[in-house]
Amino acid sequence: MGQMELYEAIYGRRDVRRFRTEPVGDEVLARILDAAHHAGSVGFMQPWNFIVIRSLAVRQRVHDLFTQENARAAGNYAGERRELYDSLKLEGILEAPISVAVTCDRSRHGPAVLGRNSIPEMDLYSTCCAIQNLWLAARGEGIGVGWVSILDPTLVKPLLGIPDDIVLVAWLCLGIPVAFEDRPMLESVGWEKRLPLEEVVFAERWQQRWGADFSK
Amino acid sequence: MGQMELYEAIYGRRDVRRFRTEPVGDEVLARILDAAHHAGSVGFMQPWNFIVIRSLAVRQRVHDLFTQENARAAGNYAGERRELYDSLKLEGILEAPISVAVTCDRSRHGPAVLGRNSIPEMDLYSTCCAIQNLWLAARGEGIGVGWVSILDPTLVKPLLGIPDDIVLVAWLCLGIPVAFEDRPMLESVGWEKRLPLEEVVFAERWQQRWGADFSK
Repeated sequence: MGQMELYEAIYGRRDVRRFRTEPVGDEVLARILDAAHHAGSVGFMQPWNFIVIRSLAVRQRVHDLFTQENARAAGNYAGERRELYDSLKLEGILEAPISVAVTCDRSRHGPAVLGRNSIPEMDLYSTCCAIQNLWLAARGEGIGVGWVSILDPTLVKPLLGIPDDIVLVAWLCLGIPVAFEDRPMLESVGWEKRLPLEEVVFAERWQQRWGADFSK
Repeated sequence: MGQMELYEAIYGRRDVRRFRTEPVGDEVLARILDAAHHAGSVGFMQPWNFIVIRSLAVRQRVHDLFTQENARAAGNYAGERRELYDSLKLEGILEAPISVAVTCDRSRHGPAVLGRNSIPEMDLYSTCCAIQNLWLAARGEGIGVGWVSILDPTLVKPLLGIPDDIVLVAWLCLGIPVAFEDRPMLESVGWEKRLPLEEVVFAERWQQRWGADFSK
């Protein structure tokens, strides 16, 4: 495996929706999942599970749920914005050979979990940190990841036998990407602009400008 | 800056609570925050802000809030477990020269946000992905990060002038660590064990074992 530098992975990571159909081997997948599993977690709770789905039948049903949910989401937009929305490819569930459902078991090692007493969402936050590890490790392995968030978890969970009390945090598509684009798709098509770093960093207090020189 | 390999950062990242008091420069801090800002976000929403806090007076007040909240959390444990809990160092707010408060503005670019229609928490999840980028970039720069989750956000927010409708997701301590330990502290002291990867990965359905060979 060609090892990648950290910043190269961070800046080259993309939310991928266009995949080639070649399979992804278990060995590379195991490395990616092991990287995810080595994220930090509140109270060393490791509340996550990763369900690897190759079944086309299941992916077809999830794709159907996406289509249904996306029709609802499209209703938020009108005019040119709606036209642009409808032109966007927002998932690659059928093309990508693998989907990974990421869950959070909020009762694992509980009910008292060290560090989760004040902010109960910490277990969900830990699970998202694991997802980012997965995303970056995949990038390092030349594998693209797309997070499909236009899905109703209550409809997806029964397809995989996920119990009611387990949170389905993410549906991820994994596969060899057609390309790792230079910029996020929503930036390229003009949906949103990247905010300047100096607008998102404050010093000492909310909305107080940070004096650091961001020109690098 | 000595660039680090991706897996080295992923496996060498630790939740750091013991810091040296040397300052962290703005240049390295800007690189770390820029890496955070390049996480993916739902609908390219970039809902995060990073408040860089050097003020010892503010950190002292947050440390007081930690002490108060930790006394409450300690009440979850009794006997030997309580003794172990009380022996753990769970934050480095005063030693670490920098704290970074990470927030999520849930109304940014809204109310309709592409991809957030079905799972409203997606903006919080995106913010956590940014935090993991920050954590890994810091590791690559030789900077330790500790996430202090034993804090009541409703009491911390007024100290920084954070508006009611902005979510305080994380309080992070940044500084040069005394050491990057080989294993997570809660593993070393026997608080919890690391779960085997094969217990957290399923194939096709919940609780169905994955056949891949995890011996690497």
